[in-house]
Amino acid sequence: MCRWLAYSGSPILIEELLYGPEHSLIDQSRHARMGVDTTNGDGFGVGWYSADTETPAVFRSIEPAWNDRNLREVTGHVHSPLFLAHIRASTGTAVQQTNCHPFRRGEWLWVHNGLVRNFHLIKRDLALAVDESLYADMEGSADSEMLFYLALTFGLEDDPPTAVERMVGFVEEVGHRHGVEHPIQMTIGTTNGESLWAFRYSSERDSRSLFFSTDIRAVREMYPERPRLQEVSDETRIIVSEPLLDLPGAWNEVPESSYGVVQEGEDELRPFRPVYSANGG
Amino acid sequence: MCRWLAYSGSPILIEELLYGPEHSLIDQSRHARMGVDTTNGDGFGVGWYSADTETPAVFRSIEPAWNDRNLREVTGHVHSPLFLAHIRASTGTAVQQTNCHPFRRGEWLWVHNGLVRNFHLIKRDLALAVDESLYADMEGSADSEMLFYLALTFGLEDDPPTAVERMVGFVEEVGHRHGVEHPIQMTIGTTNGESLWAFRYSSERDSRSLFFSTDIRAVREMYPERPRLQEVSDETRIIVSEPLLDLPGAWNEVPESSYGVVQEGEDELRPFRPVYSANGG
Amino acid sequence: MCRWLAYSGSPILIEELLYGPEHSLIDQSRHARMGVDTTNGDGFGVGWYSADTETPAVFRSIEPAWNDRNLREVTGHVHSPLFLAHIRASTGTAVQQTNCHPFRRGEWLWVHNGLVRNFHLIKRDLALAVDESLYADMEGSADSEMLFYLALTFGLEDDPPTAVERMVGFVEEVGHRHGVEHPIQMTIGTTNGESLWAFRYSSERDSRSLFFSTDIRAVREMYPERPRLQEVSDETRIIVSEPLLDLPGAWNEVPESSYGVVQEGEDELRPFRPVYSANGG
Amino acid sequence: MCRWLAYSGSPILIEELLYGPEHSLIDQSRHARMGVDTTNGDGFGVGWYSADTETPAVFRSIEPAWNDRNLREVTGHVHSPLFLAHIRASTGTAVQQTNCHPFRRGEWLWVHNGLVRNFHLIKRDLALAVDESLYADMEGSADSEMLFYLALTFGLEDDPPTAVERMVGFVEEVGHRHGVEHPIQMTIGTTNGESLWAFRYSSERDSRSLFFSTDIRAVREMYPERPRLQEVSDETRIIVSEPLLDLPGAWNEVPESSYGVVQEGEDELRPFRPVYSANGG
Repeated sequence: MCRWLAYSGSPILIEELLYGPEHSLIDQSRHARMGVDTTNGDGFGVGWYSADTETPAVFRSIEPAWNDRNLREVTGHVHSPLFLAHIRASTGTAVQQTNCHPFRRGEWLWVHNGLVRNFHLIKRDLALAVDESLYADMEGSADSEMLFYLALTFGLEDDPPTAVERMVGFVEEVGHRHGVEHPIQMTIGTTNGESLWAFRYSSERDSRSLFFSTDIRAVREMYPERPRLQEVSDETRIIVSEPLLDLPGAWNEVPESSYGVVQEGEDELRPFRPVYSANGG
Repeated sequence: MCRWLAYSGSPILIEELLYGPEHSLIDQSRHARMGVDTTNGDGFGVGWYSADTETPAVFRSIEPAWNDRNLREVTGHVHSPLFLAHIRASTGTAVQQTNCHPFRRGEWLWVHNGLVRNFHLIKRDLALAVDESLYADMEGSADSEMLFYLALTFGLEDDPPTAVERMVGFVEEVGHRHGVEHPIQMTIGTTNGESLWAFRYSSERDSRSLFFSTDIRAVREMYPERPRLQEVSDETRIIVSEPLLDLPGAWNEVPESSYGVVQEGEDELRPFRPVYSANGG
Repeated sequence: MCRWLAYSGSPILIEELLYGPEHSLIDQSRHARMGVDTTNGDGFGVGWYSADTETPAVFRSIEPAWNDRNLREVTGHVHSPLFLAHIRASTGTAVQQTNCHPFRRGEWLWVHNGLVRNFHLIKRDLALAVDESLYADMEGSADSEMLFYLALTFGLEDDPPTAVERMVGFVEEVGHRHGVEHPIQMTIGTTNGESLWAFRYSSERDSRSLFFSTDIRAVREMYPERPRLQEVSDETRIIVSEPLLDLPGAWNEVPESSYGVVQEGEDELRPFRPVYSANGG
Repeated sequence: MCRWLAYSGSPILIEELLYGPEHSLIDQSRHARMGVDTTNGDGFGVGWYSADTETPAVFRSIEPAWNDRNLREVTGHVHSPLFLAHIRASTGTAVQQTNCHPFRRGEWLWVHNGLVRNFHLIKRDLALAVDESLYADMEGSADSEMLFYLALTFGLEDDPPTAVERMVGFVEEVGHRHGVEHPIQMTIGTTNGESLWAFRYSSERDSRSLFFSTDIRAVREMYPERPRLQEVSDETRIIVSEPLLDLPGAWNEVPESSYGVVQEGEDELRPFRPVYSANGG
């Protein structure tokens, strides 16, 4: 059912966040607590930005994350101020790199936890709605990639919240037309290398868990004995499918049907409302 | 640029044909002589029929064939009267199992050597022509899989030669509409477990090589010292991208723009003519 | 921590046993109940015998078993009267095919669940005891392969129980010499294609679970509604790390420190006693 | 038969050197000109140093280099002043990550092109000579890793040229004792992150090719139209199995039976003489 995390803040060695905490993402690959499945072993991916290259790097593999040496090597030697990591539990589609997250287009990255219900049934209708100029660039067979390309079609690069709201509205309309009661279940993380958006929504209003780190200044004061917390900048934020360590007061749950933005200046948390074609198309 | 072989005849250990001859398919994976590229290392696959299961087995991998131990193990322990094997040289699409041949649907298998030119440009138009009930079953991103699903759409299961002729006509029409001069280059092998069809065609009438074994009775008389040839049944036929060994008189080239059928009773060799929508749709 | 099964009896489609039961080995790869770890996703292997080839086939892979399509394809198309299957949870050594079970030499197969404690510390001493003519054939780095080669050195091919008892005694002596309190933990399955031996032992006398199927005639009478049980021969036996389905009366636990033999004629269950150099060398 | 390159100089994007030149290492993976085999598709590896981590990173894979997307991603986003890259053509041992180069221990990296002849025959004798404290750290089965551990045993970290000369002398002595006429064939690259050593030697005095870049100041003057050459520092050096591009005057062949050192201050080129136990043990 997948787990993911996003980091934005002072540049850190990616490995520190991926492997360090007691219930790190790598630990979650074998022992997830809040997911539908405890095992997320159908591949992984990490996408990171760095100062000296234009587009983010994406390293994806079909191996389980927990014993992958290359993941450890690469993340143990790369510093980044902004990265996404994802561990996959396939909901049926093939285990192959092109189905692993993050998906990338230009400077954008995209990770998804959840599924499109009865995806096989509505896949063609969704694919036909993808912009003609984008269609041939879809390489995999996963619902998550399709959601990304639909969001791009609906304007992700210009206005991410509206594009995702229109994408979700469209998927629900197509699903309902085919008799699917609750077409979509999702938490989504996406970024253009500057801001970071995190969405939590599901048609049944019972979405997968999603958390963001509390203002780090408050956490620092509560835990003066944690040196790593003292070092990162005030703007540092972490968004995760489930908390990386038990630190009371350090995590806030993203509320049902809402989204957050981590950006220069004040961060935001807002309600998420699908846009349907009657009022949005 | 891919190489493939097809075998129909007395049940043999698959390994014998795949590894045995001096210029075997496995040798061709590193040292192809007649292909565009000498290396065919972007994955492989073998599909075989057996007496006691309904659908053929398909074993596909993204590793190069030459050092894959599982390929050797499996083919070294399975006998089959009818099988297809393929080694891949990607023309750009991802190296992943779902892009490896043979492709299968029900009792049908399909291998392809060649390419759809400017596939990226015309992919969407081709995909939209795939029957709605089949669309969501395409799992990969390769042109070869698309050709298979178009052929299925055009009636492969009922009349293979006509279906392939209509498929090729359609691809050429779509390609020409997008300004592609020579849209398709192909040799194709396909079977339903009973008969076996092999096609050789290209828009520019300069198709990849394809050979079929001469009547094995004649070959036997010429080469009495080859015990293996004496053992297989009279109906045994091999079709290959390039000859497996230098045995003068043992191989016939499939003529440009033609196709052959290996079947119970007399085998056939006929001209191949694309069917265009004006005269076929 | 690994799980394994062994089957001996009427030829069956391997897939039936591997995937069919509610708590099948494939299910155990994600949801083991009796193991140290619930996830066994560090590769798998299956080795099978067939009537028409001399040595057993071995198909091994580093992918998790649960979503591996080739495993499903191969086991879904091969019948066998005798096979071993194994799913791996690495205790530290690399995830690579040469560390996957079953290990094979000639007609022998070998699977192991457990570990050699402080293997890194005593590895060299164990390796030096491997027969000189065998040493260079070890290809992997796992303790399990080393145990196999030590057993071969101590006469596995002539007298399996004594060879394993001497191997275990030797490993314990070397371990104790290096200050390792409980050097070995193991269940082992091994076969030469005719008989099948299963061992359960650990230095601390608290061994991993191991079960064998009860006399199938008794089970049949208890469960007349299970047609599959009615079809296999009276001699059919299954040995498993943990029961494949809840069928009261169908499974016996192999007692602590004992071993069983499935063979033509009467099966046997005997105590297992390590042989030390003082009384065995 | 393997190909490798080493780079030392101004920090560059690794991809630039790996993929950029017309006959780049990636091109050599399919079309080597000077090797025994044209295909080097049995895995690859790259090891790099960076300013902010203590030990070098090593990224290794069993896939062919030419279509590996992760290799492109990682090398396309990492700058380094010192790195080694290697493409493998197995001479018989398993295709697995632990047999891929570079091998690493602490801050040392090691790549090898060539082979130990009759390695299977003398493997045990070589392994017994590896220092007891190092033995258990060997993870693979390749001759190249064994040579590295023997060199470490003979003092690589203190005096690399002498350690390699003693290692080679030892391998030749063991080989000759077993009747192997020409036990070793090698070019070797090794570095501790500061200096870089490159060796060319074979028992038959007919060693694999090895080149180093000419003083870059001279090359710059000859080729003023090549902007990339103008940008790197004067100390920049490249060592390669075969030249990366046809640039007359840009490459010098490492002479038969010699070694070079790229280091702060003046580089060196010296004769290589195996040290035998009589005069060296």
